[in-house]
Amino acid sequence: MNQVPTQSTVPPALRIQCLCVDTRDPSRIADFWQAALGWRRTYDEPDEVVLEPAAGSPEDGISPDLLFLRVPEEKSTKNRLHLDLRPTDQDREVNRLIDLGATRVSVGQADDVSWVVLADPDGNEFCVLKPLPTG
Amino acid sequence: MNQVPTQSTVPPALRIQCLCVDTRDPSRIADFWQAALGWRRTYDEPDEVVLEPAAGSPEDGISPDLLFLRVPEEKSTKNRLHLDLRPTDQDREVNRLIDLGATRVSVGQADDVSWVVLADPDGNEFCVLKPLPTG
Repeated sequence: MNQVPTQSTVPPALRIQCLCVDTRDPSRIADFWQAALGWRRTYDEPDEVVLEPAAGSPEDGISPDLLFLRVPEEKSTKNRLHLDLRPTDQDREVNRLIDLGATRVSVGQADDVSWVVLADPDGNEFCVLKPLPTG
Repeated sequence: MNQVPTQSTVPPALRIQCLCVDTRDPSRIADFWQAALGWRRTYDEPDEVVLEPAAGSPEDGISPDLLFLRVPEEKSTKNRLHLDLRPTDQDREVNRLIDLGATRVSVGQADDVSWVVLADPDGNEFCVLKPLPTG
């Protein structure tokens, strides 16, 4: 069901600043996402790495940053939160992501779903959707 | 360490479309986040609810949507991914979020950190940061 959008007239009192990802190795997983999304690394310390959208892109300064935080523990279960990625070419991007270190995983999805479920080098699940229809 | 930003000249082949959140009750948790962020509900079915940024806001059509997906299982451990929220007034927003159903939680943070750790009605941890410095 679509609802009628309401026009925003005042700046929100609360915005999403970043999506934080726990990891035992911030640099390694940031390498993957930096290459996957073509984002830039704006903070780079052993315990914390920040990725931001490409400068000059529509997302720059608007979309949440990605922040990788060192924690001692390994991932232990299916993540409760995951990203869906929108490609311009699903097969090409899935292959590129696998070349970058992603793996195909099953989280119980049916064989005929339109999206592809992958995991990053830390095992964080994410989906690669079909491209948006054009025209 | 800041790196020199690189100008983006071509549309990215892969974008973040949405952040998906597993839940046993999509509508209930979407109610919380809709009120928390002032976003709009653009899809509303028992198994899936989508929130998008306010129409006309800078985030509209740019920032990832929030998608709440029904799953059978409860949350079982600290989330590996979490959101950091940026308020204009930290105390006021923390109190407002608690009124909306958030709770204060400890994930081992020190007593003197600048952020406040809360959990949404499903127990998903998130942080409310200090406002950005002005001027």
